[in-house]
Amino acid sequence: MGNSFGKLFKITTFGESHGPALGVILEGCPAGLSIDESFIQSEMQRRKPGQSKITTQRKEEDEIEILSGVFEGKSTGTPIGIVIRNADQKSKDYSHIADKFRPSHADFTYFEKYGIRDYRGGGRSSARETAARVAAGAIAKLLLQEKGISVQAFVSQVGSLKLEKAYQELDLNKTEDNIVRCPDPETAERMIELIDSVRKDRDTIGGVITCVIKNTPPGLGEPVFDRLHAELGKAMLSINAVKGFEYGSGFDGVSMRGSQHNDAFVKEGDQIRTTSNHSGGIQGGISNGEDIYFRVAFKPVATIMQDQDSVNEAGEAVTVSGKGRHDPCVVPRAVPIVEAMAALVIADYLLLSKSNKLAEI
Amino acid sequence: MGNSFGKLFKITTFGESHGPALGVILEGCPAGLSIDESFIQSEMQRRKPGQSKITTQRKEEDEIEILSGVFEGKSTGTPIGIVIRNADQKSKDYSHIADKFRPSHADFTYFEKYGIRDYRGGGRSSARETAARVAAGAIAKLLLQEKGISVQAFVSQVGSLKLEKAYQELDLNKTEDNIVRCPDPETAERMIELIDSVRKDRDTIGGVITCVIKNTPPGLGEPVFDRLHAELGKAMLSINAVKGFEYGSGFDGVSMRGSQHNDAFVKEGDQIRTTSNHSGGIQGGISNGEDIYFRVAFKPVATIMQDQDSVNEAGEAVTVSGKGRHDPCVVPRAVPIVEAMAALVIADYLLLSKSNKLAEI
Amino acid sequence: MGNSFGKLFKITTFGESHGPALGVILEGCPAGLSIDESFIQSEMQRRKPGQSKITTQRKEEDEIEILSGVFEGKSTGTPIGIVIRNADQKSKDYSHIADKFRPSHADFTYFEKYGIRDYRGGGRSSARETAARVAAGAIAKLLLQEKGISVQAFVSQVGSLKLEKAYQELDLNKTEDNIVRCPDPETAERMIELIDSVRKDRDTIGGVITCVIKNTPPGLGEPVFDRLHAELGKAMLSINAVKGFEYGSGFDGVSMRGSQHNDAFVKEGDQIRTTSNHSGGIQGGISNGEDIYFRVAFKPVATIMQDQDSVNEAGEAVTVSGKGRHDPCVVPRAVPIVEAMAALVIADYLLLSKSNKLAEI
Amino acid sequence: MGNSFGKLFKITTFGESHGPALGVILEGCPAGLSIDESFIQSEMQRRKPGQSKITTQRKEEDEIEILSGVFEGKSTGTPIGIVIRNADQKSKDYSHIADKFRPSHADFTYFEKYGIRDYRGGGRSSARETAARVAAGAIAKLLLQEKGISVQAFVSQVGSLKLEKAYQELDLNKTEDNIVRCPDPETAERMIELIDSVRKDRDTIGGVITCVIKNTPPGLGEPVFDRLHAELGKAMLSINAVKGFEYGSGFDGVSMRGSQHNDAFVKEGDQIRTTSNHSGGIQGGISNGEDIYFRVAFKPVATIMQDQDSVNEAGEAVTVSGKGRHDPCVVPRAVPIVEAMAALVIADYLLLSKSNKLAEI
Repeated sequence: MGNSFGKLFKITTFGESHGPALGVILEGCPAGLSIDESFIQSEMQRRKPGQSKITTQRKEEDEIEILSGVFEGKSTGTPIGIVIRNADQKSKDYSHIADKFRPSHADFTYFEKYGIRDYRGGGRSSARETAARVAAGAIAKLLLQEKGISVQAFVSQVGSLKLEKAYQELDLNKTEDNIVRCPDPETAERMIELIDSVRKDRDTIGGVITCVIKNTPPGLGEPVFDRLHAELGKAMLSINAVKGFEYGSGFDGVSMRGSQHNDAFVKEGDQIRTTSNHSGGIQGGISNGEDIYFRVAFKPVATIMQDQDSVNEAGEAVTVSGKGRHDPCVVPRAVPIVEAMAALVIADYLLLSKSNKLAEI
Repeated sequence: MGNSFGKLFKITTFGESHGPALGVILEGCPAGLSIDESFIQSEMQRRKPGQSKITTQRKEEDEIEILSGVFEGKSTGTPIGIVIRNADQKSKDYSHIADKFRPSHADFTYFEKYGIRDYRGGGRSSARETAARVAAGAIAKLLLQEKGISVQAFVSQVGSLKLEKAYQELDLNKTEDNIVRCPDPETAERMIELIDSVRKDRDTIGGVITCVIKNTPPGLGEPVFDRLHAELGKAMLSINAVKGFEYGSGFDGVSMRGSQHNDAFVKEGDQIRTTSNHSGGIQGGISNGEDIYFRVAFKPVATIMQDQDSVNEAGEAVTVSGKGRHDPCVVPRAVPIVEAMAALVIADYLLLSKSNKLAEI
Repeated sequence: MGNSFGKLFKITTFGESHGPALGVILEGCPAGLSIDESFIQSEMQRRKPGQSKITTQRKEEDEIEILSGVFEGKSTGTPIGIVIRNADQKSKDYSHIADKFRPSHADFTYFEKYGIRDYRGGGRSSARETAARVAAGAIAKLLLQEKGISVQAFVSQVGSLKLEKAYQELDLNKTEDNIVRCPDPETAERMIELIDSVRKDRDTIGGVITCVIKNTPPGLGEPVFDRLHAELGKAMLSINAVKGFEYGSGFDGVSMRGSQHNDAFVKEGDQIRTTSNHSGGIQGGISNGEDIYFRVAFKPVATIMQDQDSVNEAGEAVTVSGKGRHDPCVVPRAVPIVEAMAALVIADYLLLSKSNKLAEI
Repeated sequence: MGNSFGKLFKITTFGESHGPALGVILEGCPAGLSIDESFIQSEMQRRKPGQSKITTQRKEEDEIEILSGVFEGKSTGTPIGIVIRNADQKSKDYSHIADKFRPSHADFTYFEKYGIRDYRGGGRSSARETAARVAAGAIAKLLLQEKGISVQAFVSQVGSLKLEKAYQELDLNKTEDNIVRCPDPETAERMIELIDSVRKDRDTIGGVITCVIKNTPPGLGEPVFDRLHAELGKAMLSINAVKGFEYGSGFDGVSMRGSQHNDAFVKEGDQIRTTSNHSGGIQGGISNGEDIYFRVAFKPVATIMQDQDSVNEAGEAVTVSGKGRHDPCVVPRAVPIVEAMAALVIADYLLLSKSNKLAEI
């Protein structure tokens, strides 16, 4: 249980941080989609470790191998199996913590749940698992591109350093221009400095990613439990280190009055639009055609290069020393993960919407 | 799609605001649980309309009728069907908005999705649907009580008026002592005044509910996509008017350093505990035995007693006038809904945990 | 687990033989379908007890009440909740077997599974549960009618008395002309006599139902596990008293050679057809546009009007006496149940087929 | 949709006959199970092609590679990813049928469903996909062994040549002693001769496999739709070439009277047993502790070494010539597939049974 996501456009992942490989099965991809492997691989590069001075130095090329579901460059409708080999596993790195519970990691909870754990690099609980999501998410993006839908995320906060501009004021195509993935060059510079100084302190820090989805057709969403934003929220909360999710006006909307918060409808050409968008493009759990936008909070990475007090499996007090290769801040590499999960949700709900009306059956 | 929640302990709901009835089927309730109908009914009273001056004046007794799954006072393991009749439907109230799209309601999006809609009181999109959840959630609570697990929610913010105490400083048993459901009497008083003044302005306002779950055993959670907090997040985001969810340190955790945020493990008697709880009782998506706590943001109710600009189905500009009976602030009545959804998640994950270890099969 | 069937067009049922009511939630019915209540009720009449001398004499009108999902005569896309009240419950009939395990009933197995059971009329294990399926299946039929698809079942065997004609030689519109539901009047007469003589012996007997589905478009089916015939098979095997399922050539096909069994393709007008149909309209788990046909075996009803040896919950030897009101042969009333389940499968797979091709998204 | 099977103990497969690899993700395997790779590989050998003169001569070693979920020889509770590389793909073999629809294959239906198809060896519709099932099924068998449950299948009919003994009269440990996998040596000899003569005729023939499951605890099954036999039936019907399924008395039970068919309960030592077993070990969809047994009908393989009339994608009349390497009769190699699917069902239902009773939560 828990390794699948989606209903019609659905992924199932496997793999541990230091096992032979990670992988994903993507089911439900409509037949006839051009599967551009170089695009998938380029998405993998955005997530891969060792890409800059502010990310972990683990070396992984994260090359994907497509094992099924694609014939002569097109999806066939059958499940697409993808494998990503682990190269730089260095399992010996982890012998020193084999029986210790690292603070704020999943060591203790996996041990409680299963009575056994693969301690190498956190095993299944490692964020390395998200590589498989990015591969599948890239295919979701290819599908959405065919429908004119874009999914763009960027770093909007590192620690308490916030990007003080709304997404509409930014050129989201500039996100990849810097290593922290913030589309505002000046703020990006300061974020990089902050992360680098935290790294030098042998510490870590949190951040926020904002995601914007444009050109979603109205009518996507599955009330009542599978509201579009509920599924997006779950998708985001399923990413390692995520502590919060808000869409549209979010937590700030709490302080508003209904008369301020309501988005008035107007006719614009052929379309019904709203004059404001506190709803974040979703009303009653269903897209209304406006931009969908949301924010995702990431905690500071739990692995720090410092000694910490903890206990081992026997319950004895021990010291956990900071070793290994880890990110001082997770958000730069998490941008493509957020996009991947968002694209998977939208693709899935797009397919689900195909059977809503009798007239379209 | 979208009307079910849960995997083993699973609900499916039906019903519209102004149809004959609402209802729920609860599957997977273990056999042998004493089903205390008066407790279920008391939970319904906490959510029902017309309970105080700061809630809608719609009159509904919300009496439940159990149609199956219970024999001689005990659950039998078969699905528990429950029906709640709508009494005070007053469908004529809604004729004036039959073809109009109310701002920030689901009128437009349902119409786009289905090409048809039950315009009476929002139909399925009405928060009235949550009555069915509270009935099923009450049974989840009965199950959790058997295991010593408690689920307690309370109002921690109305508009920008925040309860400035941590939940540990509060006596959560006082939550029901006032009509706004804030366990701090003084803050409660001010919240009630604020809501009442907003009501007199013919306007609405948002709020925040905090929820605390105690005595969850360690080991509950289903990584990677069905992390315990991801499912809690989805559960909350599926409630009407919710715009955000955060657990543990949440959005504030972003600004912390790893060295501050990490929760150190210690042995306390027989148990492994943590000295702080920024993790919010969940690590790697699995409970660690500490208190689980989270916050849920609710926007201001969309129905206001004022004239608003909008369009109708034909795309013509119209005025939507504020009529009907609605809550000036949704959080007082949402407290039992938050508890119900949280209880459903924990009950479900408790059952799921029964097949994790070979030794327990 | 186990009370839902279907993926997009999906039912969840509840209810016991002698509880207050049975019911069903139907999700995923496309919006805009005319819901003809009198048609649904007429399907209920075909299944209801007491309809002839060869069925149980229990008196139930089986009136449906639609509680949601229909507005102004049309489906709205939201879940359709239906309740059927039990009228003639006569619970006292069952006190004599409260702690006894009736042979070849589910008394023992429910007790083993749940440790508790509703002994009144078999509780949830009673075929009375299928009333809820027929109600939902009637809506599936209405949907299929819109697409020109028909689902027709009939009794093709009672005991060892077989209808020795292929379905193509029969006028399936004559099925309802007699109380045993066999479209061949002469055979029907003999079947009725056989059942009546068995009834007079205070015994019961089995039978076979054949079902034919016409005008299914090619392309329905979800390989590999959810092959169309696998889902039809499961649907049939989920009906009380069913012991076997075969489609197309079935068990007889075993003895054939490939050169005989293969169905040759030919062009017929605009369509690709097959010259024979041993495939039963399904190849590789996907419909090919030819008639889908299958056979379903029903065992003799377990309740007989004779004394039988058994044990009680304490393991003591007891005599189970034949009381109550039961069918001497289940197949006449099972015809609409087979049709209902088949219609549900086809409707579901029709919706699933809407997202197979990129060109149609 | 359609590539997953199971609820808690759940598999998802991918792969085509002539793509790079096949594979499976097994979720929900309880942690702590010893994963004997040599046993899994030995099950693969039983299914692999080229094993005898009466099977296809395609050469595949079907070596499994476990990519995740196993650490130091034990399952960890995380998904077990397994890949099986295709070695002897010979795609050029299939160029002659690239646009032709082979009779009674899935070529036409896949093309109708997806508008595109991988024509090499049937692509996803090839029985080669079942290799992935056997790998996962072997792990299910390892789990069942821990609980003392055995799953044994054997060939009980080839063409019209039937093994005229009940399974109780046979030594099922002799099944592997001959290449046709019939535990009766004399009948086996005749079956082999029959298959070989059919092969020499360049034709194919069908068969029946019987499967017996012993020592299942009472109480497994999920009424009403997921009855144990309904899930077994679906599992079997999802195997390539299967046309029918019956359990217990099956189609023969139709002709019996209730007074003959009913299985009387008796106390035997500590256990409640039945004196006969027409129920096939399942009553009301739940196991009763007696042997579960069922029969599965396989049609003759569609590929024959003869010229056949058909049409191509353009609808033109063409001749399909028999080439390639195929089985003259599928049942000898299908024995481990039937066992694998049965083991997967029982393992899944075993896990599902862990949350039935409050006393065991």
